[in-house]
Amino acid sequence: MSDTQSPVLALAMELLRRPSITPDDAGCQQLMADFLAPLGFTIQPLKFAEVENLWAVRGQARPSLVFAGHTDVVPTGPLTRWNTPPFEPTLDENGILYARGAADMKGSLAAMMIAVKDFVTDYPEHTGAIGFLITSDEEGPAINGTVKVVEYLQAHQYPVDMCIVGEPSSTQTVGDVIKNGRRGSLNGRLTVKGIQGHIAYPHLARNPIHQVAPALAALTQEVWDQGNAFFPATSMQISNIQAGTGATNVIPGEVEILFNFRFSTEVTAAELQARTQAILQAHQLDYDIQWTLSGEPFLTPEGSLVDAAVAAIESIQGFTPELSTSGGTSDGRFIAPMGTQVVELGPVNASIHQVNEHVRAQDLETLVKIYYRILQHLLTKPTS
Amino acid sequence: MSDTQSPVLALAMELLRRPSITPDDAGCQQLMADFLAPLGFTIQPLKFAEVENLWAVRGQARPSLVFAGHTDVVPTGPLTRWNTPPFEPTLDENGILYARGAADMKGSLAAMMIAVKDFVTDYPEHTGAIGFLITSDEEGPAINGTVKVVEYLQAHQYPVDMCIVGEPSSTQTVGDVIKNGRRGSLNGRLTVKGIQGHIAYPHLARNPIHQVAPALAALTQEVWDQGNAFFPATSMQISNIQAGTGATNVIPGEVEILFNFRFSTEVTAAELQARTQAILQAHQLDYDIQWTLSGEPFLTPEGSLVDAAVAAIESIQGFTPELSTSGGTSDGRFIAPMGTQVVELGPVNASIHQVNEHVRAQDLETLVKIYYRILQHLLTKPTS
Repeated sequence: MSDTQSPVLALAMELLRRPSITPDDAGCQQLMADFLAPLGFTIQPLKFAEVENLWAVRGQARPSLVFAGHTDVVPTGPLTRWNTPPFEPTLDENGILYARGAADMKGSLAAMMIAVKDFVTDYPEHTGAIGFLITSDEEGPAINGTVKVVEYLQAHQYPVDMCIVGEPSSTQTVGDVIKNGRRGSLNGRLTVKGIQGHIAYPHLARNPIHQVAPALAALTQEVWDQGNAFFPATSMQISNIQAGTGATNVIPGEVEILFNFRFSTEVTAAELQARTQAILQAHQLDYDIQWTLSGEPFLTPEGSLVDAAVAAIESIQGFTPELSTSGGTSDGRFIAPMGTQVVELGPVNASIHQVNEHVRAQDLETLVKIYYRILQHLLTKPTS
Repeated sequence: MSDTQSPVLALAMELLRRPSITPDDAGCQQLMADFLAPLGFTIQPLKFAEVENLWAVRGQARPSLVFAGHTDVVPTGPLTRWNTPPFEPTLDENGILYARGAADMKGSLAAMMIAVKDFVTDYPEHTGAIGFLITSDEEGPAINGTVKVVEYLQAHQYPVDMCIVGEPSSTQTVGDVIKNGRRGSLNGRLTVKGIQGHIAYPHLARNPIHQVAPALAALTQEVWDQGNAFFPATSMQISNIQAGTGATNVIPGEVEILFNFRFSTEVTAAELQARTQAILQAHQLDYDIQWTLSGEPFLTPEGSLVDAAVAAIESIQGFTPELSTSGGTSDGRFIAPMGTQVVELGPVNASIHQVNEHVRAQDLETLVKIYYRILQHLLTKPTS
C-alpha cells in the first residue's frame, strides 16, 4: 500500500487485485472482516452452498443502517480488449482507476468501509447500529447470496431499518441519481403447441408459429399501465423465440417464447399473469406457461433514509439528486421486503460489465464523504 | 437370386441390398446399366461432382418416353427401430418386402426395368425411343443430379417428349393416384433487424420480435390465391423462427425466419415475392430477405401420356386413378421445363422415409403390368 495513496483508493485496489469472478469471493470478505473487526464489528461469515457471504454488525440499537453489496464481479470478457490487466488495478495519469469491479462495486465497498471507519472514530458512541451485508453471488444466480442472508437475519431477529446498496447508481456525476426503488421483474416461458408435419401437407399439421403470431402482436401492443410518479410504465419484452430445427420442409410442433415484464407498482404480478393468459386464451392457443417472479417492485418514498441521502449529496456535491426506479434489478429487491428503507447509491455506471471498467479515484473520495454524511445524519444525536 | 422369386422381386432385392444413402449410388446404376445394355440401350454414365447419374436410351425416333428415378435413399433412422436390417431386404409371410428404398424408389426402378425388358422382347421394333434418366441425388441437395442430366440432354439434343417418374404416388392401392403436376416451391429467409439492448432499458433498444409480430400475423392470414381445377390454394408456412441467445435479460438484435410457399399456377414466384415484401414494408420493418426458388409449378394436363397412364390403370386395376398435384416436390420439376409431359406413378407411399419402409411384392408385379401397358399404348402402332 503506497503512502502516496488515499485510504479509500488503497483499499479499493486491495479488493480489485482479488479475481473474484462470481461466485468466487477470492478472499475479499476476509479482507473486509479483518478491516471491520478492529472497529468493533461482530463478524459472521455465512457460507451457503458454494457462496460466501458476510454479515458484520456494530451495535444492537435502533435504527440500524446496513451497507449492502457484493464482492463478486462479472467475467472480464476478452483480455485482448483490456488496455491493462483487469485484476491489476491501474491508476492512470488522469486519476482514473481501471479494473474489473472498479465501479461494480468494489470501489463502493472501499468507500463504505473508510466512511464507517472515519465515522466510528469520530463518533464511537453513535446511536443505532451499523451493519454490512455482503455476498459473492449478486452477479450470478442470486440463490445462495442475499436471499439467504436475509433469511438468516430474519431468523435471528436482526432488524434492518435502512439499507444503502452500493450499486453504481450514478450516470454522469457521482450522486446525480439515487435509486429509491426498483420495478418488479416477472419472467414467462410460453410454449405453444401445434402439430408437426410436412410443409407440403399443411392441412395435416397445425403451425404453432402461425397460431401465436396474432397473439404476440396483441401482447406487444398491450398497454399494461401508465406507470406513476415513481415508476415508468410497465414494459413487456420478448427476449427469445425459437421454433424449428433448421429443416425448411417441416412445420414445427411447438414454439417456445421467453419474455419478461418490468413492472411498476400500478399492477401486480398476478394481474400481469392473468391478463397475459386472457390474451393467449382469446387467441385459442394450446399453450403451457411457466412463470418466475424475480422480484416484486419496491419503493422507498421520501423518509429518513432518502432525506439523509439527498441532504448528504446536496451538501457535498451542491446539487439535488434525481430519485429513480429505472434500470435493472439489484439485491435491494430481497432486502426491501423486510420492511427496510432501501436506496442504491454508488459511483457512475457507464463502464460496468464492459472491458476497461473504471471509476474516477476522486469519485471514491466523494462517496466516502457522502456515506459519512449519511451516517452522521442518521446515527448521531442532533447537535442543536 | 432364388428361382422361387419373380424377376421384379429378385431385381428389387438386388438393388435394395446396396446401401445407397444419398449421394452414394453403391453400384445400383452399374447394375441397371448391365441389365439395360443387353436390351439394346446405349449407356451414358454422367458423373457430376460426387453424384453418379445414368442416361440410357434405346432408339432415336419420336416420341421418346423416359423413365426417371433415383437410386439414392434417405438415411435409415435408428436401426433399433427396424424389425429387419434396412439393407437386407426381407419378404415376410404376408408378401411384404421390407428395406430402405423398397417404396422410394428401388421397387419402381425394378418394375420399370422388367416392364421394359418384357416390352422390347415382345416389340423389338417398337416406335419412338425409350430412355432411363437415373440420379443418385434426388433425396439430397439435387444440384448435381437430374438438373445436370437435363442440361446434358438439352445440350446433346435428346428430346424428352414424355416422362414417367417412378415416385411412390399411390396412397392406398397401387395406381389410385397419378401426380400430373406439382406445386411450385419458393423459400424465403427473412432477417428483421432491431437494436440489441438490456431488457430493463427498452427505450434504448428496438425489439425485432415485437416489430415482426404484426407482420407475421398479416402474412399468415393472407389468402394468396384460391387454387384452380388442378392445384390446391397456395400455402405459406413458416418452418423456423429464431431470436435470442437464451439470456432472459437481453432484447435481441435480430430475428430470423424461414418460410416456404407451395404455390399453384394462379400466382408466380415473382408475385409472391412482391406481395410478401409489400406486407413487410407496410409494417415498416428494417429487413433483409433472401429468396430461393426450388421449383416453378408444372402441370401435365390430359394428353397422350396422362391418357395412356389412366387407360393402363383402368385396364389392369379396374378403377380410374385420381389426378393430383398435391404433395412435395420431385425431380419432375426439373424435367417438365423441357416441354416434357410428366407424370409420377409408383407404389404406395405410406411408409416412405420411415423406419420399416416396405412395399407389397404384389404391387411391384402390378406396376410392371401398368408400365408395360403404357409402353404398349405409346410406342406401338395401333393394332386396329
